Amino acid sequence: MSVNIVVVGSVAYDTLVTPKGKREKALGGSAAYFSTVASHFTKAGLVAAVGEDFNPDYLAFLKDRGVDHSGLETLPGKTFHWAGSYDDDFGDATTHKTELNVFEHFNPKLPESFQKPPFLFLANIHPGLQSKVIDSVQKPRLIALDTMNLWINITLPELKEAIKKVDVLFVNKQEAMMLSGEKKLATAIHSLLKMGPSRLVVKMGELGAMTATETNRFFVPAFPCPEITDPTGAGDSFAGGFMGWIAKTGDLSENNFRKAMIYGSVMGSITVENFSLDSYKNLQQEEISRRYEQVLESIRVQ
Amino acid sequence: MSVNIVVVGSVAYDTLVTPKGKREKALGGSAAYFSTVASHFTKAGLVAAVGEDFNPDYLAFLKDRGVDHSGLETLPGKTFHWAGSYDDDFGDATTHKTELNVFEHFNPKLPESFQKPPFLFLANIHPGLQSKVIDSVQKPRLIALDTMNLWINITLPELKEAIKKVDVLFVNKQEAMMLSGEKKLATAIHSLLKMGPSRLVVKMGELGAMTATETNRFFVPAFPCPEITDPTGAGDSFAGGFMGWIAKTGDLSENNFRKAMIYGSVMGSITVENFSLDSYKNLQQEEISRRYEQVLESIRVQ
Repeated sequence: MSVNIVVVGSVAYDTLVTPKGKREKALGGSAAYFSTVASHFTKAGLVAAVGEDFNPDYLAFLKDRGVDHSGLETLPGKTFHWAGSYDDDFGDATTHKTELNVFEHFNPKLPESFQKPPFLFLANIHPGLQSKVIDSVQKPRLIALDTMNLWINITLPELKEAIKKVDVLFVNKQEAMMLSGEKKLATAIHSLLKMGPSRLVVKMGELGAMTATETNRFFVPAFPCPEITDPTGAGDSFAGGFMGWIAKTGDLSENNFRKAMIYGSVMGSITVENFSLDSYKNLQQEEISRRYEQVLESIRVQ
Repeated sequence: MSVNIVVVGSVAYDTLVTPKGKREKALGGSAAYFSTVASHFTKAGLVAAVGEDFNPDYLAFLKDRGVDHSGLETLPGKTFHWAGSYDDDFGDATTHKTELNVFEHFNPKLPESFQKPPFLFLANIHPGLQSKVIDSVQKPRLIALDTMNLWINITLPELKEAIKKVDVLFVNKQEAMMLSGEKKLATAIHSLLKMGPSRLVVKMGELGAMTATETNRFFVPAFPCPEITDPTGAGDSFAGGFMGWIAKTGDLSENNFRKAMIYGSVMGSITVENFSLDSYKNLQQEEISRRYEQVLESIRVQ
């Protein structure tokens, strides 16, 4: 099966402390989350770099999920290592350590079989690299891009250049304000849609997420998760569910993007119930369908 | 036509400065907004007090809208007068003056014809008065209550006493956190639902609003309003649309509460497009239906 969606991002060791426990050097990184989740929908290929110390069990995990990891380079040195903790309210993480290691000089190389990707997701990396990847591939049907406040602060011109080239922009509410320089979400949305993307996905944490085009707004509530164990990767899992569904169906209608939002919400909820990517060790397709129906029911008006 | 819904609250003079202009002593107050809006759905009765200086044109306005104002007392002294302004972002108002005047000693008196109200809305007044009103009427089918951070800060025990007796509690997100003492909305909702009400309506400003029971969550996006003129009364108008629809239909099913949320969103959007209650001078029923369909379409997934 040839690769239907390519993600370029990070594969990392995450050392985590949450109110539910701790984990040392768990599998993490935006591309690990995204590709694992998207693989539940379609064939996903991963482009990232790890060090020589990368745990072979983690590679086996990705392989077992069906992820095409031929774009995962092993470089001399150590794997990107992030350490952080979450308070009782599971709000923003407190970062204790960021050792970029091999990720510092990451220069994405797409294998031959990844160079005509029908769908492309640029996870949160330097916007210069995001642009470079876009320019290097045969034009995909849909390109989506995620970013973070760091790049808005230090590489704004390059970020704007990258954003110009994409169809879907993922941001959270705070990033939407920062990037647009607006004070209200409604005007921020309008301003961001003038920068290039025809669609935004605005993540609003525990509330859910909104997708917006010039003519449509659609809000999906977060799946109710009473038992959060580890919020790491919730956003990348949302993107993995969203893009995985779009890539699987190939349907770019407004209605199908709304379904994609629900799948995003569902996959985010599955990820955060366990540490790292543990939720995906035994995930059944029926669990995804069950949650999809539950979210759908929560927004239905007859 | 006998009164189907009774609102107890304030009728006030509002002196306003917004980025769109200014108004001196415009008609305002929670009960004025609520009753005007609810009258577009069903027969609404108003309980409030004004001073001898109250503008007879405003009384005529309420009468023309079909509001039963037999519960509007005129007391010796001056009408409650609030002065405030809004910044460019139309966020929280800055209060310049609050002259309570006759409202300081407001003691709601319900006319005989208001004492068996099928539906009752307690707008934002002292929680001791809210309790007293509840105890004085024959048990309504549904009681809803609105409040504000002031009462949470200075009269928490009395507020909790009042909340125990109601079915639906209206709060904004900040009030939900303050009242529950929780840091996350999901846990705040859980905690508030243990205080008495079986349903919450959590207003989230420009995003929209959520209704929550122990088993259901439903989110309605704000109607897109590019032309806000005066945000005063948006919350009371939401409540007026919500409760007006419930009172008109008498249907307390989850699905009908979701429709009520949409009517709340619609009526809030109509109010803020003009100063004071000016939007209701010539409002056509078709405009309400048109906006209802537009919001419904924005949340539909097929």
